[in-house]
Amino acid sequence: MRMMEEKILSEGSVLPGGILKVGSFLNQQIDTCFLKEIGEEIARLFSNDHVTKILTIESSGIAIAAAAGIAMGVPMVFAKKHKSSNVDGEVYSALVHSFTKNTDYNVVVSRDYLTGADRVLLVDDFLAAGNAFNGLLELCRQAGAEVVGFSAAIEKGFQRGGDKLREKGYKVESLAVIGSMTDSEIVFRT
Amino acid sequence: MRMMEEKILSEGSVLPGGILKVGSFLNQQIDTCFLKEIGEEIARLFSNDHVTKILTIESSGIAIAAAAGIAMGVPMVFAKKHKSSNVDGEVYSALVHSFTKNTDYNVVVSRDYLTGADRVLLVDDFLAAGNAFNGLLELCRQAGAEVVGFSAAIEKGFQRGGDKLREKGYKVESLAVIGSMTDSEIVFRT
Repeated sequence: MRMMEEKILSEGSVLPGGILKVGSFLNQQIDTCFLKEIGEEIARLFSNDHVTKILTIESSGIAIAAAAGIAMGVPMVFAKKHKSSNVDGEVYSALVHSFTKNTDYNVVVSRDYLTGADRVLLVDDFLAAGNAFNGLLELCRQAGAEVVGFSAAIEKGFQRGGDKLREKGYKVESLAVIGSMTDSEIVFRT
Repeated sequence: MRMMEEKILSEGSVLPGGILKVGSFLNQQIDTCFLKEIGEEIARLFSNDHVTKILTIESSGIAIAAAAGIAMGVPMVFAKKHKSSNVDGEVYSALVHSFTKNTDYNVVVSRDYLTGADRVLLVDDFLAAGNAFNGLLELCRQAGAEVVGFSAAIEKGFQRGGDKLREKGYKVESLAVIGSMTDSEIVFRT
């Protein structure tokens, strides 16, 4: 998606530790006109995959998943990062390691909202090592739901998480794939 | 909004401790067709208020704020509940008490995304005692931004947070206002 690459180049910045800051348009602040186009692009990429549900993870995946859900006309579900008091009953749960925050956390989703009848598209803002997506994949495995693919707004291709999923046979469609990144230069994979 | 009241009655449930569970359509799982209508209704309610930005708080306010932002064509910003490593530079910060989780937390937003030029609509899924909204209000005060109003998907009127804001002169438009609530009955304020 050319517009995503242009936004990253014009508004993004690389912070120490290899963190790509896109807070001015994709998380923290969200350009909602752009968000609508992101949702429509994800819907286009998976238009033939009979998606019944979109699954993401709080917090920064929610707006993108909501826009995709609106464009596709399917419900979206967000996994929570800990068992909260307003999720009752049984949940599916998986452990995820966050490199950004250097912590482990559980992703949980109520059994009510993910079932064996679902064909699930996994959506997030970033795909790097793939830990968050692998946690969501594990939730789907527990639910017996079929995973039809993955879509990230931005994939850090050099961290290989997306390619590992592709090597397993999954459809992975990221809106921009960064091949290499330094403080002064961002190069996209073509 | 009659559809919100109908959704609460048909799909909501009251958990012990006075928690209204709406996880099947408003948080955790989100009915995205309904979400689009929520966004358009909020846009209609504040169509004459010259809103330049929507501010909410992670996580469950994000989808609603995004839908409202898409409908209004203005950016949305979500305050984070702790200072995260991918928010650099200076932030505005305010302390909030969560009754649901019985903890205090800081809401923070980057100074880059909230300024004295903004006319801000505050949006959230729930308005109860008003603690989250008062935290966001404090962030706007620090930024010198003008608050044009508040919109919650569901207001627990009996917890008085919305009325306290109205008594201060703020425009508060909740899509459903619950006047009283027990395990067996939910009564809306008319």
